Amino acid sequence: MSGKLYALSTGPGAADLITVRGARILGNLDVLYAPAGRKGGDSLALSIVREYLGEQTDVRCCHFPMSADSAEKEAVWNEVAAALDAEVQAGKQVGFITLGDAMLFSTWVFLLQRLQHPEHVEIVPGVTSFAAIAARTQTPLAMEQQSLAVLSCTAPESDIRQALQQHDSLVLMKVYGRFARIKTLLHEAGLLNCALMMSEATLPGEQSWRHLCEVSDDQPLPYFSTILVNKQWVRV
Amino acid sequence: MSGKLYALSTGPGAADLITVRGARILGNLDVLYAPAGRKGGDSLALSIVREYLGEQTDVRCCHFPMSADSAEKEAVWNEVAAALDAEVQAGKQVGFITLGDAMLFSTWVFLLQRLQHPEHVEIVPGVTSFAAIAARTQTPLAMEQQSLAVLSCTAPESDIRQALQQHDSLVLMKVYGRFARIKTLLHEAGLLNCALMMSEATLPGEQSWRHLCEVSDDQPLPYFSTILVNKQWVRV
Repeated sequence: MSGKLYALSTGPGAADLITVRGARILGNLDVLYAPAGRKGGDSLALSIVREYLGEQTDVRCCHFPMSADSAEKEAVWNEVAAALDAEVQAGKQVGFITLGDAMLFSTWVFLLQRLQHPEHVEIVPGVTSFAAIAARTQTPLAMEQQSLAVLSCTAPESDIRQALQQHDSLVLMKVYGRFARIKTLLHEAGLLNCALMMSEATLPGEQSWRHLCEVSDDQPLPYFSTILVNKQWVRV
Repeated sequence: MSGKLYALSTGPGAADLITVRGARILGNLDVLYAPAGRKGGDSLALSIVREYLGEQTDVRCCHFPMSADSAEKEAVWNEVAAALDAEVQAGKQVGFITLGDAMLFSTWVFLLQRLQHPEHVEIVPGVTSFAAIAARTQTPLAMEQQSLAVLSCTAPESDIRQALQQHDSLVLMKVYGRFARIKTLLHEAGLLNCALMMSEATLPGEQSWRHLCEVSDDQPLPYFSTILVNKQWVRV
């Protein structure tokens, strides 16, 4: 059997929000690469998929630095991509797990860019955190002719302001450390009452805030916090 | 046991791209409502999930008219919402299946708006068609500070033109019947070479076009056709 690399989207957090395909592939891997937040630390993605892993699977945690030093980050991406390439060349069934969906704001893409043999790659898509938040809060993402923008709160303020004006719905990801600034932008756009925030959606620590005007600027937030704005949603 | 209504996202089309949660719930339903394209016609959503259904499940196909007459559409939404409410009140475990993700461009939202007891509803999110297209074509949706816009090609031309200018990546859904117009907009924005199109992603009839400049304006397209634009994507 020839080697193959699967990029496996875990979905938003609950173990059963992975796809059936993802769960089946996890049971048949020789090696699984799991990203870890800290060096030697736990991997949230690994904790999500652990129940699906086969006994034969070697698990390798890899740490991607959050560093602002892009040379340091690129060195790690090069190293992990080379390791993945080597496993596939050795004929192994290799997995790389990634939170949410593999193609949206994921470190996986930096690895994909560097792989020597993309033809041996299968990417298994997943449920995004914002689809989970829309489901949990019963808030639509878009209907009919409406448009949806998905932004990171690390984007330039002018881009966020413009998107708030132009789209019917918005997903603002990576709120952590930027809540006060985003709250001000929402207030200026007259959208504070159309916004909600959710942290760690579908995980045991899930929290939600329906009335952002009541949330203090220095509210401590978990790392995975997202704001969803829908200007149009009304119940009949 | 008290009644409950599950809105079950099927994902993009391949049966194994439903979530594990969705598959498990399907096995335990008393009744499943499935939307059908034509009156008395087949339901694509039903064909996707059929393998997960329990033997005890009653399947009811319901037809939602594509009519421009909103009174006719609203009458059907009211009727189906009332039927769902009644099943839940009778203590049943009820499912409603919906293609892609339930909260994005889905008829489900018109039913949700009309339900008398949203507290008995659980929405199970799903993989969107555009996540599947990104995975199949190995094209990222967004990275780092980039932004993504998701639009319907039924939106006003000025909105599409503006979004093409402002976002790094775009998903243009509902291309069917509007390809020539969208191709012109992409050409005017200088983005024809950054765009790809896929129809019926992950279904047996999947087709893709990497070079839209070579696709004729009157190319016959399946109903489920989507264009993905990424201005920044380069392999290292």
